[in-house]
Amino acid sequence: MRTRFQQGLDDLRTRLLRMGGLAEQAVDRACQAYIDRDLARCHMVLEGESLINAAEREIDELAFDLLAMQQPMAVDLRFILAVTKINSDLERVGDQAVNIAERVMDMVELPTANLPVDIPRMAAAVSAMVRRSLESFIEGKAELAQAVLEMDNVVDRMRDEAFISLVKTMNERPDVTRQALDALLIARNLERVADHATNISEDVIFWVRGADVRHNVTSEPSLRHSATDTH
Amino acid sequence: MRTRFQQGLDDLRTRLLRMGGLAEQAVDRACQAYIDRDLARCHMVLEGESLINAAEREIDELAFDLLAMQQPMAVDLRFILAVTKINSDLERVGDQAVNIAERVMDMVELPTANLPVDIPRMAAAVSAMVRRSLESFIEGKAELAQAVLEMDNVVDRMRDEAFISLVKTMNERPDVTRQALDALLIARNLERVADHATNISEDVIFWVRGADVRHNVTSEPSLRHSATDTH
Repeated sequence: MRTRFQQGLDDLRTRLLRMGGLAEQAVDRACQAYIDRDLARCHMVLEGESLINAAEREIDELAFDLLAMQQPMAVDLRFILAVTKINSDLERVGDQAVNIAERVMDMVELPTANLPVDIPRMAAAVSAMVRRSLESFIEGKAELAQAVLEMDNVVDRMRDEAFISLVKTMNERPDVTRQALDALLIARNLERVADHATNISEDVIFWVRGADVRHNVTSEPSLRHSATDTH
Repeated sequence: MRTRFQQGLDDLRTRLLRMGGLAEQAVDRACQAYIDRDLARCHMVLEGESLINAAEREIDELAFDLLAMQQPMAVDLRFILAVTKINSDLERVGDQAVNIAERVMDMVELPTANLPVDIPRMAAAVSAMVRRSLESFIEGKAELAQAVLEMDNVVDRMRDEAFISLVKTMNERPDVTRQALDALLIARNLERVADHATNISEDVIFWVRGADVRHNVTSEPSLRHSATDTH
């Protein structure tokens, strides 16, 4: 028979996954809105924000109640602390989706410009990172989380490329400066989503391995902490 | 006589304040580097990052140990959870300082441009927010924290003004596009520091009042949650 505490832990896990689903959906919608220049989808993202905020608060309250309820064992304590941290990151992923939607709303009012940046490709990579970081959490697999950390470098490189080519566009085609700036800011928002996925993966590893891998510099470049580079 | 647990709480508070001092110093240095076009100061910010990361990890470990050590009372539990959240925000303030330093390093290589943006004024407002959010934590005063939330709107407005005038500059003076973009990104980084100060203040209020004020929409505009607007 499961105790009330164990049921609480299950509830916490379920709620966090639902929160993750909302955050992922928000990013996907914002990127689809970019592709289709779709104002209605932007509004959906803006309206969804309050749901995400409410979900964050409920999860924090439940975590607090569980910690207050009884002396958790070390493994459960690590799990609850990881949940509260993942929770914050997911809420911030939702914020990034809102930022993207706001930039798309700006772009839609301007003439279409052919820009040297592949936002959909970057969005796909970033969404995969969020999804896999949550999978690593569901399955409690540190290897999966580790793979997400390695993907972060790819996204950083995409962001750098976008930055260079869009600044060039701004210089050469002043008529599309604002569109190029919007695209540049969207690329940065996506990179920040990737950073949150990285943070989530680190929290999963902390929970699973019982060791704090954050900020550990190893000789393997792929394992180096790059989430601090949150331009 | 103070128990080991109480001494641990004191230690946690002291370490968090030291961490706050490091984060504040990093932002001040980065902004001074902007004013003086000072590469040496940029490098100091970059080198200081690992200190901040190490401090974050130590605080998280101590918080974990305290939670594992004994069944904390509700008020202590709230305090420890607030510390872990404030800790994350301070580390991200340090990241923003690094981002600013990197943009300054880019600017220093370009010709000086007279730009329509008052970064020092914005930096002063943002530094005051971080300092006051930490003061509200030291003194356990929700009113002080509330005042920080109200300052956030001022910084948001500065960022919006900077955005509008710098985009105009990019359009009219293609020769300084890159400098204007650097300044625009610095303004955004500063605004994000302000958002972290807002988050810290909300955590202080959560701890002091025992109520979660996050994401509460009230009829007073100044109390509205604006930290989600993290462009």
